[in-house]
Amino acid sequence: MDKFEIEGFRFSAVGAGIKHADSDRLDLALIASERPATTVGVTTTNLVCAAPVTITRGCLQRGIAQALLINSGNANAYTGDSGLANALFLTKSVADSLGIAHELVVPMSTGVIGQPLPVDRMNAKISELTRLMNPSSFMDAASAILTTDTTPKTALVEKPLSNGPLKIAGMAKGAGMMAPNMATMLAVVLVNMSVEESYLRKVFAQANDLTFNRITVDGDTSTNDTAIIMSGGSNQSKALLDNDMDRNLFSQGLTSVCADLARQIVKDGEGATKVVEVRVFGAPDEFSAVRVSRRIAESPLVKTAFHGEDPNWGRIICAAGSAGVKFDPSKIDLWIGSVQIVKSGNLIAGEWEAQAKQEMRLPEFSISIDLKTGLAHATILTCDLSEEYVAINADYRS
Amino acid sequence: MDKFEIEGFRFSAVGAGIKHADSDRLDLALIASERPATTVGVTTTNLVCAAPVTITRGCLQRGIAQALLINSGNANAYTGDSGLANALFLTKSVADSLGIAHELVVPMSTGVIGQPLPVDRMNAKISELTRLMNPSSFMDAASAILTTDTTPKTALVEKPLSNGPLKIAGMAKGAGMMAPNMATMLAVVLVNMSVEESYLRKVFAQANDLTFNRITVDGDTSTNDTAIIMSGGSNQSKALLDNDMDRNLFSQGLTSVCADLARQIVKDGEGATKVVEVRVFGAPDEFSAVRVSRRIAESPLVKTAFHGEDPNWGRIICAAGSAGVKFDPSKIDLWIGSVQIVKSGNLIAGEWEAQAKQEMRLPEFSISIDLKTGLAHATILTCDLSEEYVAINADYRS
Repeated sequence: MDKFEIEGFRFSAVGAGIKHADSDRLDLALIASERPATTVGVTTTNLVCAAPVTITRGCLQRGIAQALLINSGNANAYTGDSGLANALFLTKSVADSLGIAHELVVPMSTGVIGQPLPVDRMNAKISELTRLMNPSSFMDAASAILTTDTTPKTALVEKPLSNGPLKIAGMAKGAGMMAPNMATMLAVVLVNMSVEESYLRKVFAQANDLTFNRITVDGDTSTNDTAIIMSGGSNQSKALLDNDMDRNLFSQGLTSVCADLARQIVKDGEGATKVVEVRVFGAPDEFSAVRVSRRIAESPLVKTAFHGEDPNWGRIICAAGSAGVKFDPSKIDLWIGSVQIVKSGNLIAGEWEAQAKQEMRLPEFSISIDLKTGLAHATILTCDLSEEYVAINADYRS
Repeated sequence: MDKFEIEGFRFSAVGAGIKHADSDRLDLALIASERPATTVGVTTTNLVCAAPVTITRGCLQRGIAQALLINSGNANAYTGDSGLANALFLTKSVADSLGIAHELVVPMSTGVIGQPLPVDRMNAKISELTRLMNPSSFMDAASAILTTDTTPKTALVEKPLSNGPLKIAGMAKGAGMMAPNMATMLAVVLVNMSVEESYLRKVFAQANDLTFNRITVDGDTSTNDTAIIMSGGSNQSKALLDNDMDRNLFSQGLTSVCADLARQIVKDGEGATKVVEVRVFGAPDEFSAVRVSRRIAESPLVKTAFHGEDPNWGRIICAAGSAGVKFDPSKIDLWIGSVQIVKSGNLIAGEWEAQAKQEMRLPEFSISIDLKTGLAHATILTCDLSEEYVAINADYRS
């Protein structure tokens, strides 16, 4: 059995030639549940949102869906009324092919902005997608949703609950345009158990806040960001019981799936060679902690220093100082990995430089800063800024 | 006569081996007036500010100064009490050498953060600096203040006023860490006429707001930013008369000197190959116009597309949409140079792509976006983001 197989859900993926008509790369995926599943999620905060996002928002508000049609290669964003009509046409086509109500189909797109969707080529593949659906093609779907990602991103958690085994499987795509409040990120999380809607909304929002909303690649916010969760897709799905222990295990499991996907997104950020945890402690409140860590995590000067494995701590403190959060620079502590560099505002005497450089040579390391003004803390995951990021994005469309 | 020669001011520059002890590159400059000059200015908004900035703020508050001691290669930032003592010691040394009160000496520094100033090497050069001072070494001083800049930045305006000829000469250094509210920028503007302090403050603040505060290279805010203006350095300096015509000519001249320097800073941004004017029209208010244009101007995805000469207008609209300013995306107009790409929210049909690419091949071009929600407008000057930027900053300290 495929390890991502999850009761009640089936998958398929085809190449529809969405980006290049003559390519057979997988770029269209279908994920469907056996019965309408409790489905909630979050979408981009960008004022300019893609056509599919508008439709998705309606589904997420109703809290129920049965199929996700996801394409890469074209964002169907800023495509006006015809973009909306195209997305609706395709969801209807999927609904007809599956024999379900078209309001149960959620469209998701990622790729270039402002190009009309090749709707005929896509529609021609719908019946094939429906026919191919099976429980073990999770990885095909996870591959079909990628754009400049170099590798599929998946995560899995299993836990024994009172009512039976819990299984949570997630897939995501990321790469560039990672941002304050979500990334150009599509994430789909599937749960074998039935979880009631209001609780699912609350727990998924919390998990998002601690994971997908705490990563950054380049600080841009996409038009298409969507993270969605479907639960209880099978007629046999057991219910998540309303007891603290089960709910805690579910919430922990869900957060760990999202955190796992979020870290993979940063690791595979465009041109990224390093994952860096920017940890801020001693902040007056959590909002300020996030603000300072995000400012450091998004500073091009800090990110290029990460890339150069240069313990240029001055740039880190400089970025912190421009975050708009009040603290006393002469009191702070700063570490690169486990190497302390600044203590109570004073540079540590001695041979920390070589040790700090050593830490930065690792593919993953952390920066910690204690502002000494309060008890709140936050961590943002970021990556380095490399020549490769520029090369990828200077050429993306061509 | 040197064209930058300006009544009442003298200049000198030496190599003090500040960055590398064994280099004789010019890195220490002295600018002094014949008599105490009306001096005002603005400094960084970063909470972490350099030692010289603390001292400079005192001078600028008093509104009077007679000498500027400027070094490159070391920012004297985050250097604690000894950094402050070092800066004070050097200003006192200059004051003694010139025979003036030490409160009249303004220290300015730019370079690496967190390294102690090589105060002995610098102090050893003070008497030579004083001895070398002469009216025609403006360009030497302009060269000595550079860091990763590839070329000195100077600007000059001359206008006939009722009371005699007005001359305004400016020099600046820029390169990286260009930011919301000032850049890592040092700018010195000298005026031959005497301008009363309160009026000078007002006009210089306005000029800053329209020029140095409307540029960005990488969105980072430095610890050392300082823009300073000295007026009426000579006992023979004519007064700027209090009539509308003269004041308008002065204000225009000053703004144009600052704008000229600001554009040179962007043009010589680290790794920059293009200067781009991001113009936003039809905004509800000026603050919103600045916010949208800054968001576009700082987006790494937009800046890499500039670098690739790729008319990827979708990224521009996406960045605008995430600026936190309300507008209706289905109404906007967008141009690259003079080529309209979006009209009332619709992509222009026809062959605009090749024309837009043509515009982007130029070393300087503009992006214009009309939000159609009001009458306010603003322009931010930015540059492209190149592999070279990353290479420079990954290696800066080594």
